[in-house]
Amino acid sequence: MSKAIKTLAVLTSGGDAPGMNAAIRAVVRTAVFYEKRIFGIKRGYDGLIEGDFEELNSKSVKNILNLGGTILKSARSEEFKTEAGQMKAYEQLQKHGVDGLIVIGGNGTFTGAHRFFEAHGVPVIGIPGTIDNDLFGTDYTIGYDTATNTVVDCIDKIRDTASSHNRLFFVEVMGRDSGFIAMNTAVAIGALDVILPEQNKSYEDLFVEIEKGASNKKTSNIVVVAEGNKLGDSFSIANKVREHFPQLDTKVTILGHLQRGGAPSCFDRVTASKLGVAAVEGLLNGRFDVMAGMVDEELTYTFLQQAVMNKAQLDPEMLRISKILAI
Amino acid sequence: MSKAIKTLAVLTSGGDAPGMNAAIRAVVRTAVFYEKRIFGIKRGYDGLIEGDFEELNSKSVKNILNLGGTILKSARSEEFKTEAGQMKAYEQLQKHGVDGLIVIGGNGTFTGAHRFFEAHGVPVIGIPGTIDNDLFGTDYTIGYDTATNTVVDCIDKIRDTASSHNRLFFVEVMGRDSGFIAMNTAVAIGALDVILPEQNKSYEDLFVEIEKGASNKKTSNIVVVAEGNKLGDSFSIANKVREHFPQLDTKVTILGHLQRGGAPSCFDRVTASKLGVAAVEGLLNGRFDVMAGMVDEELTYTFLQQAVMNKAQLDPEMLRISKILAI
Amino acid sequence: MSKAIKTLAVLTSGGDAPGMNAAIRAVVRTAVFYEKRIFGIKRGYDGLIEGDFEELNSKSVKNILNLGGTILKSARSEEFKTEAGQMKAYEQLQKHGVDGLIVIGGNGTFTGAHRFFEAHGVPVIGIPGTIDNDLFGTDYTIGYDTATNTVVDCIDKIRDTASSHNRLFFVEVMGRDSGFIAMNTAVAIGALDVILPEQNKSYEDLFVEIEKGASNKKTSNIVVVAEGNKLGDSFSIANKVREHFPQLDTKVTILGHLQRGGAPSCFDRVTASKLGVAAVEGLLNGRFDVMAGMVDEELTYTFLQQAVMNKAQLDPEMLRISKILAI
Amino acid sequence: MSKAIKTLAVLTSGGDAPGMNAAIRAVVRTAVFYEKRIFGIKRGYDGLIEGDFEELNSKSVKNILNLGGTILKSARSEEFKTEAGQMKAYEQLQKHGVDGLIVIGGNGTFTGAHRFFEAHGVPVIGIPGTIDNDLFGTDYTIGYDTATNTVVDCIDKIRDTASSHNRLFFVEVMGRDSGFIAMNTAVAIGALDVILPEQNKSYEDLFVEIEKGASNKKTSNIVVVAEGNKLGDSFSIANKVREHFPQLDTKVTILGHLQRGGAPSCFDRVTASKLGVAAVEGLLNGRFDVMAGMVDEELTYTFLQQAVMNKAQLDPEMLRISKILAI
Repeated sequence: MSKAIKTLAVLTSGGDAPGMNAAIRAVVRTAVFYEKRIFGIKRGYDGLIEGDFEELNSKSVKNILNLGGTILKSARSEEFKTEAGQMKAYEQLQKHGVDGLIVIGGNGTFTGAHRFFEAHGVPVIGIPGTIDNDLFGTDYTIGYDTATNTVVDCIDKIRDTASSHNRLFFVEVMGRDSGFIAMNTAVAIGALDVILPEQNKSYEDLFVEIEKGASNKKTSNIVVVAEGNKLGDSFSIANKVREHFPQLDTKVTILGHLQRGGAPSCFDRVTASKLGVAAVEGLLNGRFDVMAGMVDEELTYTFLQQAVMNKAQLDPEMLRISKILAI
Repeated sequence: MSKAIKTLAVLTSGGDAPGMNAAIRAVVRTAVFYEKRIFGIKRGYDGLIEGDFEELNSKSVKNILNLGGTILKSARSEEFKTEAGQMKAYEQLQKHGVDGLIVIGGNGTFTGAHRFFEAHGVPVIGIPGTIDNDLFGTDYTIGYDTATNTVVDCIDKIRDTASSHNRLFFVEVMGRDSGFIAMNTAVAIGALDVILPEQNKSYEDLFVEIEKGASNKKTSNIVVVAEGNKLGDSFSIANKVREHFPQLDTKVTILGHLQRGGAPSCFDRVTASKLGVAAVEGLLNGRFDVMAGMVDEELTYTFLQQAVMNKAQLDPEMLRISKILAI
Repeated sequence: MSKAIKTLAVLTSGGDAPGMNAAIRAVVRTAVFYEKRIFGIKRGYDGLIEGDFEELNSKSVKNILNLGGTILKSARSEEFKTEAGQMKAYEQLQKHGVDGLIVIGGNGTFTGAHRFFEAHGVPVIGIPGTIDNDLFGTDYTIGYDTATNTVVDCIDKIRDTASSHNRLFFVEVMGRDSGFIAMNTAVAIGALDVILPEQNKSYEDLFVEIEKGASNKKTSNIVVVAEGNKLGDSFSIANKVREHFPQLDTKVTILGHLQRGGAPSCFDRVTASKLGVAAVEGLLNGRFDVMAGMVDEELTYTFLQQAVMNKAQLDPEMLRISKILAI
Repeated sequence: MSKAIKTLAVLTSGGDAPGMNAAIRAVVRTAVFYEKRIFGIKRGYDGLIEGDFEELNSKSVKNILNLGGTILKSARSEEFKTEAGQMKAYEQLQKHGVDGLIVIGGNGTFTGAHRFFEAHGVPVIGIPGTIDNDLFGTDYTIGYDTATNTVVDCIDKIRDTASSHNRLFFVEVMGRDSGFIAMNTAVAIGALDVILPEQNKSYEDLFVEIEKGASNKKTSNIVVVAEGNKLGDSFSIANKVREHFPQLDTKVTILGHLQRGGAPSCFDRVTASKLGVAAVEGLLNGRFDVMAGMVDEELTYTFLQQAVMNKAQLDPEMLRISKILAI
């Protein structure tokens, strides 16, 4: 175990995700367990640059395991993308004697962390915290499981009213570049169809599925739309469908930011706890510039650059299953 | 007890509301209890006109108490507004030997029912089923309590992320003519402000409250917006606010139809059960052209015309409380 | 408005209830609104006696509206029942300059508060916070609505498995002296029968209902049992039933303390907010030795002694409805 | 693809689990997709023996994806353990022309299915449906994820009240032979300690952890107890603890059958959908006497005998993590 590291710091960055607090708690308590000092940095890289540090202990993180959001707050920092910003950040770490940094976030967070490591050699390790599940090197990112349950719970409610009125609903879920949430919730709620960022779906394809649903006399027809799909935004998709199927009562719901909140699921809390411990132990054992993840139920460290570049791929089998079950 | 009535029918009409199934169940089982025949009519007045009747018994309504939506489906009928439509409806009732009709719904439903009673003398009684809580003659309409819990649960999730990012959120809730949902959920989630259909609120008023929130360094600022407010739709309100407070990170969420779904709350199930029994017993006791409601914990029958015309009023005290607590 | 009162204190006592935090928040912010000092007292009357005071401000109560439990913690104090204990409590109030006390709790809390007022003349006002709903002078106590939703949610889950296995379940809910939770949840989940503290139910009565359920070939038979019923504890009731109906697969579930927790419902948050404001305004207007409550949607002050002695009565109509709907 | 198989049947057996309906739906629709006939068999092996068959189609399984329990009902059959019972079952399959059987359940279900295959050569395939997660050959059994979320949700509520009263709670969760639910929920709720069937824990061990919790001045101390642990039932454990720590306010909650119910989580619905498709496709491709499972995100077929004998093992790492985080 590296004797060099005596003081750690942890921050959350980018879009918040349920389970981030569970990860913070695990990081802090593991640091305490190994008798290291641990700082919490507020508002992601902005707080790092501005020196918004607070020393934490075991008590600081009690009763946060079940809270959505992040007690450290989060932000997307423009300044950290600049050399000057990174230099200020480095100076803040020096000033507080921090010799190991844990960052919890997604793509942007890790890209920044990797550059920071390259520029200043700061021992840094990542924990995957994003509802998008789009990182290579972990089967599940923290927050993804909770977000899918939230979406499914909302669409179950929408289906109540959809069934009562024979309506066609387009429900837009989060996922700018990645269709994980859309694809899995579509199977879970028995969607008529799904529109993904990864697809080159045409309106003709969509019309065929809607036609099929109508001819099967389905009473509730729900199409799940990932926000980053290539066909268009949900309102314009719905408008095209209204033109083509004027007899259908077509509605749009955009679930929006409520997908980021809520008490984390058991799975997200357990994953966050495991990865929080693993991140601190990784740092103490000299694993830098990597992300701690779970692959095939095993703890795995993946270089940050790889985690970001080799995007996680949707299982094509899911689309096949979705079609069989929409029969 | 009127010996004339031997056969009843029940329908749901207008926007669906959680607890409609609990009311249907109560109507059906009370009819069975009094040894009457009972038909369910599908798709509201449209199904009445088209003769979409199904005879129900005690078993038909088992395991529906906890389901959102309505097993009888619902619709807003244009044809029932015409004399010809009402005549067809009357003939269908005659054909099936129905001599008492129970309608579950809101404003539009009761307006139609009253005209039907006037035109054809059909014994008809109403049960208030709408999430809007905007009927005179009952303190609570079926579905309102569940809808407020759904809204509060969603905004609790949004607040997680709002707090994590210091954002200002405009959350639009249902309520075309009535601010009950908006006003009560605003107090329940500790909103910075609320925008109601009943108010003549100006942008200046709104800006003052937002200013106050910012100066109090509130970390999560949520404004609840009723869809039928006079200031504008949520997106245009947010745009005006962005112009005036460019430093704030302003977001919009429109909760939409998920507010109509979900398992009904205990309160809505109990109210639905009471009113379902009361509607059948009212009809059998010769109470026609009225709505069964609960006023001050007492069962009350109010003429349909009064229920619809003397709109329920928001308690002005709520606005005062809301301001004190947003301090 | 009484100029005498400058400094207030608030405590929670007895069994905790969801919405107590919403009431604390309302009390604190209303005090701040009227420019009064406000102390929070920890652990109920024990903390009062021991001087466990903390001054609160508007920020102290942010982000607690949606939390179950009580941030002030609660306890049942033996010492406060003694003259010596009350004297110590009085001295603590004097020491901190408190000239108005708000107590949030139920029967025991108000009994103590009334004695305290009589003995030392301390201006005291009560807010009804208990899941039992058993106080006179308010239609709803804070926490009751949430508890009934929690029970209904749990029994909905039990019914899933009850239906899948044709089982008879006895589900024990809270209510030592009062059957409000049991009676209302029994109607809300469609129970086969209910056993209340207010009843002199015999095993013969119970067997008749079970027999009826079996002969109706009901697939899920759930009996709701209030803990304080006179027939016996749930396990011994189940054993008697097993002897009499050996062919039934009879199970027991005791919901226990989870009924006290959870995020409060919209209704409980709104009631808590109203009553918190009303308690402070009542005190400032010279209303002492009373409980603030809502009767028929109107704010009402009831003498503590009356609130405690004239127990709220179950509506006998509910039992009648329950029987009709179990048909 | 085996041309021999033209008619399939599906049943659920043993304890029910959330997601069984999603698996039934997937089985039925996949059968329809491949143009096979499909029967549903009621009440597990008992219904198989008694010929309680119903032909199903795509519509039969609509709107069941989100329902807990099993629409086919379940039972534990004694008769199917006998040769005579298996012969009757075989004759029923012959009579209905069923040449492929899908069984959804756990240990007991698969033991029976394997014997049936050996005795009569009936092509049979298993889908792991049990909340216990104790089968070899699949990382997750259907229902386990939902059950852990239900437990976590309940204990979050109990913690509200535990924190408000400084209490020590023993919460008993399901798991006769396996500690998966207990171990994972213990980490997810931040338990003080956990008592597992797989451990030889002594009272001394337990007292040490409780002592530690008390000395850390933890305000909420929750110990998760798996029902099949070797130390004793929860009430006797609590009594021993009360003797040793008379100053602690010690309570017991037994969560019981509500752990089996509720709407399935997204994860369970997706797993159930995948495995339902895989089971039918496996049978049609000549995979008999196996269970369809997911191992390391890959579809895997494991011989029923292996699935049952090589019990899934708890990850010892979890206990280590649990201790670090309870610091």
